Amino acid sequence: LSAAADRFPLPPGSVIGILGGGQLGRMLALAAARLGFETAVLDPAPDAPATRVAAHTITAAYTDAEALVRLAAISAVITFEFENVPAAAVDALTGAGAAVAPPGRALAIAQDRLAEKTFLNEAGAPTVAFAPIDAAADLGPALAKLGHPLLLKTRRGGYDGKGQAWIESPAEAEAVWASVGARAAIAEAPADFIRELSIIAARGRDGELAFYPVAENHHEHGVLRRSVAPARISPKVQAQAERIAATVLTALDYVGVIGVELFERDDGRLLVNEFAPRVHNTGHWTLDGCEVDQFEQHIRAVAGWPLGPTQALARVEMTNLLGAEVDQWRVLAAEPGTRLWLYGKAEARPGRKMGHVNRLSPLKG
Amino acid sequence: LSAAADRFPLPPGSVIGILGGGQLGRMLALAAARLGFETAVLDPAPDAPATRVAAHTITAAYTDAEALVRLAAISAVITFEFENVPAAAVDALTGAGAAVAPPGRALAIAQDRLAEKTFLNEAGAPTVAFAPIDAAADLGPALAKLGHPLLLKTRRGGYDGKGQAWIESPAEAEAVWASVGARAAIAEAPADFIRELSIIAARGRDGELAFYPVAENHHEHGVLRRSVAPARISPKVQAQAERIAATVLTALDYVGVIGVELFERDDGRLLVNEFAPRVHNTGHWTLDGCEVDQFEQHIRAVAGWPLGPTQALARVEMTNLLGAEVDQWRVLAAEPGTRLWLYGKAEARPGRKMGHVNRLSPLKG
Repeated sequence: LSAAADRFPLPPGSVIGILGGGQLGRMLALAAARLGFETAVLDPAPDAPATRVAAHTITAAYTDAEALVRLAAISAVITFEFENVPAAAVDALTGAGAAVAPPGRALAIAQDRLAEKTFLNEAGAPTVAFAPIDAAADLGPALAKLGHPLLLKTRRGGYDGKGQAWIESPAEAEAVWASVGARAAIAEAPADFIRELSIIAARGRDGELAFYPVAENHHEHGVLRRSVAPARISPKVQAQAERIAATVLTALDYVGVIGVELFERDDGRLLVNEFAPRVHNTGHWTLDGCEVDQFEQHIRAVAGWPLGPTQALARVEMTNLLGAEVDQWRVLAAEPGTRLWLYGKAEARPGRKMGHVNRLSPLKG
Repeated sequence: LSAAADRFPLPPGSVIGILGGGQLGRMLALAAARLGFETAVLDPAPDAPATRVAAHTITAAYTDAEALVRLAAISAVITFEFENVPAAAVDALTGAGAAVAPPGRALAIAQDRLAEKTFLNEAGAPTVAFAPIDAAADLGPALAKLGHPLLLKTRRGGYDGKGQAWIESPAEAEAVWASVGARAAIAEAPADFIRELSIIAARGRDGELAFYPVAENHHEHGVLRRSVAPARISPKVQAQAERIAATVLTALDYVGVIGVELFERDDGRLLVNEFAPRVHNTGHWTLDGCEVDQFEQHIRAVAGWPLGPTQALARVEMTNLLGAEVDQWRVLAAEPGTRLWLYGKAEARPGRKMGHVNRLSPLKG
């Protein structure tokens, strides 16, 4: 452990391993390159976006123990672009002597919606009321305790709105549970939110904390469509979001960038929807709105470097380019005040995140 | 030719070939990745900085015809990070059907200081008075015509102050010529400048022009130490610099970014020192001072995309990190308002460009 601590801060030229080669891994790799680091990307797909800008590529399943050992052998630190890394993979990396950040515990908690909400409440970060649904017999007591409607979500898997459905009345409860696979689930009371917000925050190896301005987010069909940051919120709400993020980061002894999704209620209270132990789509605005964006911030944190400034230099509206929307690149490239990010994905399948644009405007006004 | 024109604008996912894998190639590759392009880097060194962030690497001499054909086969367009590419290499690429930008003629002229100054004067871009020195016998007439001191420079090769020396008096002329290798040279009258300036400009495939604010540059031992931009000059001087750049770009039917080094005289007149048909060290300030930096601008131009905005968003002082100065990374990373760029070079040889910092301050004040 002390040998591991001694390697930080990592000098330029060190190799940063990244599990996952999608657009988040790609933008992490670009940020790492700016600071003189090399990256090693492990992904099952040989042409994953991040592999195109990485010095080292390992094409293997996340469960391939031999490949993980190879990654650990060349990397000074290993991080993740997504949270669904099998716990066994993290154990294999740690066992091979790798420094892993964020900590495996953050991944494990984020992978299980019940563990996540339990952890958040125990740490003092408020969420909606919830109940575990392990069997059909649990539905009745949950409805009795929480009322209805209830949002039923599988404990594991599912993202972008998949693996969840509303129970509008007790009569349909069993059918809804069957519709999400009759698997271990969590039933959540409605959040009654007026807005969806998020905060991107970071914690360094020395415990230093940094918070970006809160973003306001708009989803369509469960997928993020648009974020606006800084959100038009009061300083009190910003402070509340920062307190929540600080609570989560500290309780997890976290290292790296985290994305915390929040519900804003009409009484001004914030509830945590969920956290993502990684860079986050609602933080893409920082790429053009801040001196140090979330990707460089994450690299700084996991490398043991000092965190960078987080204040907004402009107001940014970030819009995801989904599927064939990426074909608008020619128009978008000519749009004044619009910064285009494309992820180098070959196939523009419907709904696939192909890129995003950041539209800038002055902070005041 | 029309088939070549039809391929532009290049769609995202296209491969952009880069001859040269140093820091300029690296920053070009990073800018290309942002726009969804892949890059293919040809460099004699297997671990050259740009190869660490490129999807395709060809390790070969610039004169390796077979390697050049391979590069042409995978690249939708080919560009350069430096101007000393052999004309035969450009011919090989063009012969293999590659679209090459900037044009080979710009490279050929920039490689020969006599051809360069002759071209500039014919195009209407003012320079110091000069005379060709092909043999010792040319020294006397040059001194008679231009007076002394004279700056003697080899016509080809030499950079960062190498391959040049002052003739302080007629008596030492032959010895000075011998000191630069008794090779084909050019004798230049002193510029009598009060400041060294430069302008980074770009020309698109449709002839569109774009000009960045002029930078003020400070050299030490012939190597750029520091640039400040926007330079504190009058709008008239900026306009004069833009006119000169426009003249050069148009006369060369140029595509891409160019760096034009200027001498400012005390009467306000600008003279061209030389031009670099590529992205330029004195344009590194744009990385953190402009919405679209010189690297993205070059990628946009060679890919046939619309050029981006060039106005300064901040005042930037760019300082090169030479040799062991890069060891200050830990301090620099913690410095507020300071953006660090490291090039991923393993060996910090004395004077070697290892990285740079951009220090930002508000435009007004």
